[in-house]
Order: sequence, then structure tokens, then C-alpha cells
Amino acid sequence: MDNVRVVIWGFGAMGSGMARMLLKKKGVDIVGVCDMDPNKVGKSIFEVLGIDKENRPEVIIKENVEEVLTEKCCDICLCATDSFTKSAFPKLKYALEKKVNVISTAEEMSYPYAQSPELAKELHNIAKENDVTILGTGINPGLIMDLLVVCLTGCMIDVEHIEAKRVNSLSPFGPAVMEEQGVGLTVEVFEKGVADGTLAGHVGFPESIQMIAKAIGWEVEKIEQQMKPIITSVDRKSPFGFAKAGDVAGVNMTGQGYVNGEIKIDMIHPQQIEPEMEGTYTGDYITIKGTPEVNMSIKPEVEGGLGTIAMCVNMIPHVINADPGLKTMIDLPVPRAIMGDMRDLIKR
Amino acid sequence: MDNVRVVIWGFGAMGSGMARMLLKKKGVDIVGVCDMDPNKVGKSIFEVLGIDKENRPEVIIKENVEEVLTEKCCDICLCATDSFTKSAFPKLKYALEKKVNVISTAEEMSYPYAQSPELAKELHNIAKENDVTILGTGINPGLIMDLLVVCLTGCMIDVEHIEAKRVNSLSPFGPAVMEEQGVGLTVEVFEKGVADGTLAGHVGFPESIQMIAKAIGWEVEKIEQQMKPIITSVDRKSPFGFAKAGDVAGVNMTGQGYVNGEIKIDMIHPQQIEPEMEGTYTGDYITIKGTPEVNMSIKPEVEGGLGTIAMCVNMIPHVINADPGLKTMIDLPVPRAIMGDMRDLIKR
Repeated sequence: MDNVRVVIWGFGAMGSGMARMLLKKKGVDIVGVCDMDPNKVGKSIFEVLGIDKENRPEVIIKENVEEVLTEKCCDICLCATDSFTKSAFPKLKYALEKKVNVISTAEEMSYPYAQSPELAKELHNIAKENDVTILGTGINPGLIMDLLVVCLTGCMIDVEHIEAKRVNSLSPFGPAVMEEQGVGLTVEVFEKGVADGTLAGHVGFPESIQMIAKAIGWEVEKIEQQMKPIITSVDRKSPFGFAKAGDVAGVNMTGQGYVNGEIKIDMIHPQQIEPEMEGTYTGDYITIKGTPEVNMSIKPEVEGGLGTIAMCVNMIPHVINADPGLKTMIDLPVPRAIMGDMRDLIKR
Repeated sequence: MDNVRVVIWGFGAMGSGMARMLLKKKGVDIVGVCDMDPNKVGKSIFEVLGIDKENRPEVIIKENVEEVLTEKCCDICLCATDSFTKSAFPKLKYALEKKVNVISTAEEMSYPYAQSPELAKELHNIAKENDVTILGTGINPGLIMDLLVVCLTGCMIDVEHIEAKRVNSLSPFGPAVMEEQGVGLTVEVFEKGVADGTLAGHVGFPESIQMIAKAIGWEVEKIEQQMKPIITSVDRKSPFGFAKAGDVAGVNMTGQGYVNGEIKIDMIHPQQIEPEMEGTYTGDYITIKGTPEVNMSIKPEVEGGLGTIAMCVNMIPHVINADPGLKTMIDLPVPRAIMGDMRDLIKR
């Protein structure tokens, strides 16, 4: 059987991390990479990654997607370019129409029915017409605050209330994340960014809430979200971030899903640089009230960057094996690490 | 659309618990119950359960399965009669040949390829021939020490070692479990029971180990299991058990799965009455070494009886929707609570 052939679209931290992971796995080849960074275009992926090419075929990073993604040129395209369904849509459509399966890292794509039901429907139809499958996934949304919650409700007779809390550190992240999350801003500038919508914060609460609700059969009538500054009382410094005492070290995102007028799903997600400096330790916590109650914790948090890379690569076989159309994590078998040959997991 | 129709075979603690759960759910009816207990045969399930029948159709418990399970008389049969594949096999075969889907609580059926590969193959073929699906599940094996482990590896690039530990209390259980687990025996009698195979202990390590290994692509070449007495230093009393100081309060089961000569999967499962009396607190713990590491805990443990009941009922839609054949938890979408109408989850 031929190796599984993968194209990576977007060779930033996520895309290049997936390449590193794929190069360690058996039964899979990277057959093309597309990126628009002039520092990368025209270079070998092995040079950019600092990995010995050995006897692998060369892969040159190209800017023009038409040179990379041609009809059935690969089994799957990992699209790591966007956070929002709307901005990712033209790329996803392009790939699907080349009759290749797609995994998107766009947070909103983890459950696009939440905020872009029309585009979700369109992607579903395009995928079906081209006999391929598309999935959005990542560590969160994708696992920690949604799929894992769903999985834990599986041992429950009755669910009354769900709280998912992810306390994480932004310290490992680069300048883009520092900017998106408002690290180092004064409180005033932060509040202005929240008011005018220029600060993104965490993208994914509506997706996680709707994914859980759909899975267990609740109808969410309203979702609220709040975004507050985490103000540090000491100077905090991370490799790419700095917040001086009195300024913003990160963002505390909270969200609520209402069912029959009551808050049934609570999301709590403070993210900041150097949380330990003020006694905050990272972790993922799921507390489900009902019968029986479930109180789960993962300490420290599952690291977001590595987690997203792994989720996307590990879902490749499930997506290739799935029926055509748009799928979400609740439609497919549970994610799992791939320690053997990827070809053994493909049903042909 | 018609309600989902369920037959329950075996109306002990598990089967009757499933009935209680089903009676609270929408879009599903219990259409038959089979049990051989003379105290139950001929009685209404509502009388046995102590639940008002209201306007539901009557269901009388019958001893003769031929009167309960006829061709296509239901959508699914919940078979809660056995722990072992071999002893459950004739019943499962009978149900499949009546062209109904089956969920079995038999621990070995959660991954029958582990210890009964021939019977597993036969069940797969019988199910396919009759265009129905069969699944074995429960809280453990079925979720805590296997599927949940698999799910957590989904966010990992690389897995080096897995430890699954379930510290639980036997206090809620009845006389049968006290006897199976050796509660109250002297150490001498316990050791004799281990030696001659009359003490069952936990059934499920080979199944959990093989399920995990299959999912992530490890080949297990050897499985070892140990069964040690938990000797109490104080008198312990539970509703159905008593262990005096110096005697056996429960059993400490451990198991190991070897991959390439190394222990890669460690299972640790001490179960005892009144663990808190000697400072042991219940919990479920999964520790996965690799990249990134995952350290999960659920405290207290997910209660085993309720958890098994919920897993079996909650998997009904997934089993009805699945392709024909023998499935295991790693083949199907993640389990989830059913808070809405069960009919909405059935693809017809």
C-alpha cells in the first residue's frame, strides 16, 4: 500500500510543527507545502526545519497554491492558516474542490455551525460533491473544553451543569500571540481593544459550547462571553512577552451557554504569561454536576501548541476513513496517538 | 418516528439500573425483559423497580427468552448477564440471529479479541450476516482505564509509557461482589482462592491493555497480572461486607502490557471496602509519559455501577447507527449523555 500523502498549507508554528511530527511517523509522506512567508518560499522544508533530508524526496515551499494542490495530488491537506471560518473558507473550498480531504486548525471550524451555519452547510455540500471529508480540530476547541467533556458525560445517567476550565500559560508563545491576547498593554489600552474588537482573546467558546450541547442533546438559546484583563502586581517576563506591574499579563475569558433560561455550560479560560509568579498553576478542569458527578483535572495543562499539532496529525486516518462531508469531533471515533504505521489505519 | 425499542436480558443490579435510566429518557421504550430469578419472573418491571407505571405499556419479566426476543422485536438488546465472552456467547448469538443489535456488559466483551479471538470473529460474522451490530462496554473496561486513555493520547505527538490507576471503593456493592473480590476472607483463604482461580478479582486488564495497544499501534507481546490481598489493620464494615483487622478488605490488582520487551502499559486497580478508614481516597488516574505528558485525575472515582449503566444506555444510538459487525469502543464516536430525545440521535 502507498504511503499516506499529506500537503501542509501554512508553514507557521502549527504547520511546521505538524511537518516535524509527520517526519517521525511511519507510512506517511509530506508531498507539498504552501506558505506566503518570503523567508520560506523557495526553500526546502528540511532546511527550514533544520532536519536532515536523508533519503526523503525534496519538498520545496511554494507560494502559489496552484503549484502545490492539484487534483488528488494528496490524501489530505492540513490547512493551518486561519482562526475564523470566513477567512479560511476560500482555502478550504479550493482544497476540497481538488478532491482532497482537509483538516483545518481554524478554531471556528471545530464547530462551524455555531457561528457560520451557512458556510458550514456549503462546506458540507462541496465536500460531499467531491467525495472527501473536512474536519476542524485542535487542542481547544477540539479536545480539552469540548470533546473531553462530551466523553466524560458518557458515564453519566443525567447531566445538570458543566464547567470547563483551562488555566494556561502564554509563556511558550511568540509575538503574535502576545499581541492577540493583549500581553503588556496598559489596562486602558486593553479595554479599548476589547471595546473595538481588535483584541481576539481565545477563539472557541461558542464552538465548544455548541459542540457539547449538540452532543448531549441540549438546545442552547444564548451564549455570553466576557474578556477581562489579568492585571499583574509584579513585573512578569516571558521569552516574547513583558508585562510590568499594574499592566496586563493576559486575558481572563469566560463564557456561558444558556439552556431553558439557565446557565448550563460555564467556560473559564484565563491565559497569561508566567502565571506561577502570582501563585497560579496551569491545569485543565472539568466539573460535571449530575449522576454520577465527574471531577476531572489535568495538571499541568496539556500544552496548547504541541496538543494542536498532535490532534491534527492524529486525526488524519479518521478523516480519510470517514463518510464524505463536513465532520466535527463528535462524529468521529476518539482521537488517538499514532505509534505504528499510518497505512495500517486506513480503510481502503 | 417510532420510539427506540429496547429489550433487557438480565434484570440484576445492572439490567434493572438500565431500566430505571431508560424510563427517565425520551424517545425510547422497554419492550421486553428476560430474567431467571424466580422472585422476578412473572412480575411487572414497574413492580420490581418500585416505579409508577403511569400510562406506559406493561412489561412482564419472562424466564423464557424465546418469548421475549423474537425476530426484529426490538432495535437493541442490552445483555447484562455475564462477565466472560465464552459464557455470554450463546446469548449474544441468539440475540444477533433475531436480527437485533446488542450491547453486552460482559467485561471480556469490551475487547473480545484479547482472550477469545475465535469467538470474536464468529460474533462479527453472525452480526454481519444478520445486518446488526454488537458492542461490549461498561465503565471499566469500556472507559476509565482504556477509552479515556486512548482519547488523551490524541493530543500527544509521541507516547512512551501509560499508567492507568483506578482506586475504588467496594462499599456500595452487594454480597456477590464481596464474594468475588474476597472481602472478609483470611489471607490464607484468599491466597488459596487466587491459586485455584475461584477468586475473580477485576476482569478486564487484558481487554483494556489490548484495546489501548490496538488503538495507538503498539503490539503487545505479553500480558502479566497479579492479585494481592489488601489486608486491613482495622475492622472495616460496609453495608454488605465486613473485614476484621488482619483479614482481607479487598484486592489489589495489577497488570502489565509488554511491547518490545518493555512494560509500556501499567494497570493498577486496588478495590476494597471503606478505603478511607486507612487513608485511601478513591480516584481515577491516567499518567501518560511522552510529548506532551498528560497527568489526569478524577477524584473521587466515577462510581462503577452507575457508570456502567450509563455507558450501556448512552451507547445505544451509536450501536444502532454503526455498520454491521462486532465493534469496540475505539471504533465508534465518543460516548455521551443523552439529555434529549433518543430518536433524534438515530440515523435511519
